[in-house]
Amino acid sequence: MRLAVIAGDGIGPEVVAEGLKVLRSVAPDLETTDYDLGATRWQRTGELLPDTVLDELRGHDAILLGAIGDPGVPPGILERGLLLRLRFELDHHVNLRPAKLYDGVRSPLAEPGEIDMLCVREGTEGPYVGNGGVLRRDTPHEVATEVSLNTAFGVERVVRYAFERATARPRRHLTLIHKTNVLTHAGSLWSRTVEEVGAEFPEVTVTYQHVDAASMFFITDPGRYDVIVTDNLFGDIVTDVAAAVTGGIGLAASGNLDVSGTNPSMFEPVHGSAPDIAGQGVADPTATVLSVALLLDHLGRTDQARKVGAAVAFDLSTRDPRGRVRTTEVGDRLAALAGG
Amino acid sequence: MRLAVIAGDGIGPEVVAEGLKVLRSVAPDLETTDYDLGATRWQRTGELLPDTVLDELRGHDAILLGAIGDPGVPPGILERGLLLRLRFELDHHVNLRPAKLYDGVRSPLAEPGEIDMLCVREGTEGPYVGNGGVLRRDTPHEVATEVSLNTAFGVERVVRYAFERATARPRRHLTLIHKTNVLTHAGSLWSRTVEEVGAEFPEVTVTYQHVDAASMFFITDPGRYDVIVTDNLFGDIVTDVAAAVTGGIGLAASGNLDVSGTNPSMFEPVHGSAPDIAGQGVADPTATVLSVALLLDHLGRTDQARKVGAAVAFDLSTRDPRGRVRTTEVGDRLAALAGG
Ligand SMILES: CC(C)[C@H](C(=O)O)[C@@H](O)C(=O)O
Ligand SMILES: CC(C)[C@H](C(=O)O)[C@@H](O)C(=O)O
Repeated sequence: MRLAVIAGDGIGPEVVAEGLKVLRSVAPDLETTDYDLGATRWQRTGELLPDTVLDELRGHDAILLGAIGDPGVPPGILERGLLLRLRFELDHHVNLRPAKLYDGVRSPLAEPGEIDMLCVREGTEGPYVGNGGVLRRDTPHEVATEVSLNTAFGVERVVRYAFERATARPRRHLTLIHKTNVLTHAGSLWSRTVEEVGAEFPEVTVTYQHVDAASMFFITDPGRYDVIVTDNLFGDIVTDVAAAVTGGIGLAASGNLDVSGTNPSMFEPVHGSAPDIAGQGVADPTATVLSVALLLDHLGRTDQARKVGAAVAFDLSTRDPRGRVRTTEVGDRLAALAGG
Repeated sequence: MRLAVIAGDGIGPEVVAEGLKVLRSVAPDLETTDYDLGATRWQRTGELLPDTVLDELRGHDAILLGAIGDPGVPPGILERGLLLRLRFELDHHVNLRPAKLYDGVRSPLAEPGEIDMLCVREGTEGPYVGNGGVLRRDTPHEVATEVSLNTAFGVERVVRYAFERATARPRRHLTLIHKTNVLTHAGSLWSRTVEEVGAEFPEVTVTYQHVDAASMFFITDPGRYDVIVTDNLFGDIVTDVAAAVTGGIGLAASGNLDVSGTNPSMFEPVHGSAPDIAGQGVADPTATVLSVALLLDHLGRTDQARKVGAAVAFDLSTRDPRGRVRTTEVGDRLAALAGG
């Protein structure tokens, strides 16, 4: 397995080291190449994602990313120039985000086992396309726009993927989240696509919910969800709500998938670079390890993925919920469990 | 006080009746005009908001709205043609949504008194403008767009209002919620505006949060918020999250304000028409009564507003949390408390 590693900034390198430790424990054939990208490189050289690096990344089976970001960099530079550029250039049209309440994880909102959802967020369209502009900047007549672009091609492929995932799960349920009553143009495309693709999956039951109502039900009744499909921006928000009700951002994993397999997919914890705790060895690497499980699963290494997932589940069920996390200790335990 | 009443559909008429009962108990000079608008009228006549009705509405001091909507009406018709049309025509640029955890209300996430936020949501811009379209509908080449429009004029007035509210509260704190790292054009206008207007309010401390992170902190640490200012769509979502953590949609009140006073402002519970429980007398009218308090406050009837607010606070603190709500009984109790 040829893996490109972008450890990034802040706690990124710390959690990635543990992710690789666990990965190696189940996949000894791992070959890694490190790529120095992120805030530090940009601050030093002004470079975000050189074309040569992008080309090299394409030659790998997958990418593991830690975290990108630093308070010293103006908003948007690293996101648009690096993180989102990777997602767009590598056609990561499925942003996969499971949210499961594990045994041993405290949630005031549900019992372990009650929450097990899989959010399929669109990754290359919607309000994330960067289409928009500013007119008459810094005058009282300034106008700023953002255009959400949605195509039948883009919506169809992510909706189809969501149905495929739903049909392989016991509950076979899919929820479309959008705001069709206000964003009527994009909403109509999404609704019609779900209806059309859904006709090919009669065994999957389908529900629709407005994003505002869904954000509430994620809190008051998260157990009702199975697979969710939604647009790029709504997915960004509701997956953080889902993370909050399933033990927090320390456990939230994600995969940015090019389902066609043309480009390497990229796996990353949902959390950021957390500069406030960087360098202290207290960041929880579990979200990175769960992202490694998604990576293995994506590469068809189902058995290895299962081992990593089981290691996390066991470790969480036996952790002292009040105990302080030591990054390397968690990694050591998970590697021993997964590889043992 | 000349009040236009749009009771609307489903539980709308039931909760509005109680809202008016409480309003009358503190404001005996109330004169109401009923307007028959909503799903029922549209289904019967095809009419949404006739211009003559809009003109008549303008002649009132305020509008009280119950709920609009019916599952039999396609998404967008009533929202764009009636609800949002009212907000846009009457220039309701401030959508005011308090979220407070009252004594006696159970929340798994905080103790009573710990949550007291005031969300100032922009009401006439952003992705709500209805600007967008569909190209090549129902073909594999379909493209659907939604344009978020943001103007210096529109952002400045709502940001200024938020600072004014913040400066009058004990904590004097304001949080801007946006997604400036992705929506860089609109985000830049919002950030710069908060910075500029903030210079006039040095006593107010200001924080910025991305909408995804904020949606998480609303759940894990809602006590940190005081006043919030945000765009139309983000406000729609985060206020439902705020409602979920402060006792649910049954308590969420809102005011759609034209701060300039040119047009009547409109007050409505955040909940919908809830057709599943309509006609049974079990809808909780408390959100409508709290909207009445906002209405009184907006009209400068501070003392009457205080009485209604105190009645709700007292009633909630003594309600049996497991007891079944009877719509008219709640209204009777609140009217007696407020007027007594
Ligand atoms: C950092 C940012 C661009 C990103 C997003 O909005 O997608 C992040 O919030 C995420 O969810 O992965
Ligand atoms: C019904 C809908 C148009 C409305 C909105 O999105 O603003 C509602 O959700 C609200 O929050 O008042």
